[in-house]
Amino acid sequence: MYKVKVYVTLKESVLDPQGVAVKNSLHSLSYTDVTNVRIGKYMELTIDSNENVEQKVKEMCDRLLANPVIEDYRYEIEEVVAQ
Amino acid sequence: MYKVKVYVTLKESVLDPQGVAVKNSLHSLSYTDVTNVRIGKYMELTIDSNENVEQKVKEMCDRLLANPVIEDYRYEIEEVVAQ
Repeated sequence: MYKVKVYVTLKESVLDPQGVAVKNSLHSLSYTDVTNVRIGKYMELTIDSNENVEQKVKEMCDRLLANPVIEDYRYEIEEVVAQ
Repeated sequence: MYKVKVYVTLKESVLDPQGVAVKNSLHSLSYTDVTNVRIGKYMELTIDSNENVEQKVKEMCDRLLANPVIEDYRYEIEEVVAQ
């Protein structure tokens, strides 16, 4: 069994209005030394298989979890001993 | 200058409808060995300050970035040499 952590972030060139909104909110709470905020998605998947897990993770990211036009993704695969 | 990575996830006891929806979509794409999906937020903050950065990050998470009632958060703080 595997635990996979997937991080999906907007490409650097893409404007992040959500990040700008959060930054402005932080400034209004007096955290003015925050100069940049980028918001992305963090997903934890549990995969109950032992065959070519990395290949499957790549496919899932390319086909569903990330939008390759505007997003980048990276992942960490960790084997978990099933209880 | 500091780069902070914040991971906000739903508490284990909280139902994750978004995660269930993604899991069902992955199953419909034939990735049936995905047994669980949890979706969270991933944020990258740039902080231009050298005073009690960790304290500020904790406060920002407690006050804005995470909802302490239903979410947990963790963070990684990395010093960045300003170019």
